[in-house]
Amino acid sequence: MKKEARILGIDDSPFDKFKDKEVLIIGTFFRGGSSLDGVMTTTTAVDGSNATARIIRMVKKSKFYTQLRAIMLNGIAVGGFNVVDIQKLAAATKIPVIVVMRDYPELGKIKSTLNRLGMKSKVRLIGKAGKIHKVDNIHIQLAGCSLEKAKELLKISCTRSHIPEPIRTAHLIAAGIKLGESKGKA
Amino acid sequence: MKKEARILGIDDSPFDKFKDKEVLIIGTFFRGGSSLDGVMTTTTAVDGSNATARIIRMVKKSKFYTQLRAIMLNGIAVGGFNVVDIQKLAAATKIPVIVVMRDYPELGKIKSTLNRLGMKSKVRLIGKAGKIHKVDNIHIQLAGCSLEKAKELLKISCTRSHIPEPIRTAHLIAAGIKLGESKGKA
Repeated sequence: MKKEARILGIDDSPFDKFKDKEVLIIGTFFRGGSSLDGVMTTTTAVDGSNATARIIRMVKKSKFYTQLRAIMLNGIAVGGFNVVDIQKLAAATKIPVIVVMRDYPELGKIKSTLNRLGMKSKVRLIGKAGKIHKVDNIHIQLAGCSLEKAKELLKISCTRSHIPEPIRTAHLIAAGIKLGESKGKA
Repeated sequence: MKKEARILGIDDSPFDKFKDKEVLIIGTFFRGGSSLDGVMTTTTAVDGSNATARIIRMVKKSKFYTQLRAIMLNGIAVGGFNVVDIQKLAAATKIPVIVVMRDYPELGKIKSTLNRLGMKSKVRLIGKAGKIHKVDNIHIQLAGCSLEKAKELLKISCTRSHIPEPIRTAHLIAAGIKLGESKGKA
């Protein structure tokens, strides 16, 4: 894989779960872990179920679409519990998807919350997302991507921290836009 | 000067001059020309006269303020004719200011337009901004900064193109947020 393989990093903006109905989604188009070449955006419903469709649309209408070698998500859900169907995202775009998590998710707690909220289909989506692998200091889930390939993509893109640059940058932009100044880590 | 000297790059978002009253201003906090460490935002009035005050406030309230070694602006005006008083910006923040322009500005045309619109104070601001220097492929204006120091800051920050990375990145973010996907060059 080339060191400058084009990667899309996706993160959502902070939101107020009592007030906001929509959340801003930021996509950063990166050359490997070195250079930002473009920014794209969409919105999804807080706790809704349109994240997969919205992200597929954002990716497919992008001028960078045909160049993309991977899509990286900062966690499997955006806007609270708007869970992304990563198999569907990979299949619809024909691009490998890697979910990046700083910590191993508390699956039991998440699933019982979703069940309590009557969001059983999302419990299924989380189950469907497959095995969680530990790679160095982060955890990942994969769709349309072998573990070997994912490790290679992480090596290329984690140039400044444990978090791939496309995701780290999407996080900074999303927070800066929403809060006036970025805070905290991806 | 350190290769990772902290630089703030500022650009405005695209706007509709017939509809929009406010324009989004993006500030990128960079380590030299290599790494984005933060994003900050403010707004200014289209064709208004609050850009200088708004940018001073954004810079001074930032958690990165004390680390900044330079402020770079993509042109001397934001939101159309909201001209920045770069001497005032440099004096109020005690940070060197560099205005970056891809092309030599058509000063005669700009001044006659401003005069026709009754914006004479802005003509004075443009005059006050001082000599336009050509450095490599770009043009710059300076406040609180020697030409020698400006050249050093450009050398550190122009790692991927003729345009300093902080400005190039601010431009991509501003366009991506406003248009859904970034277009064109800073």
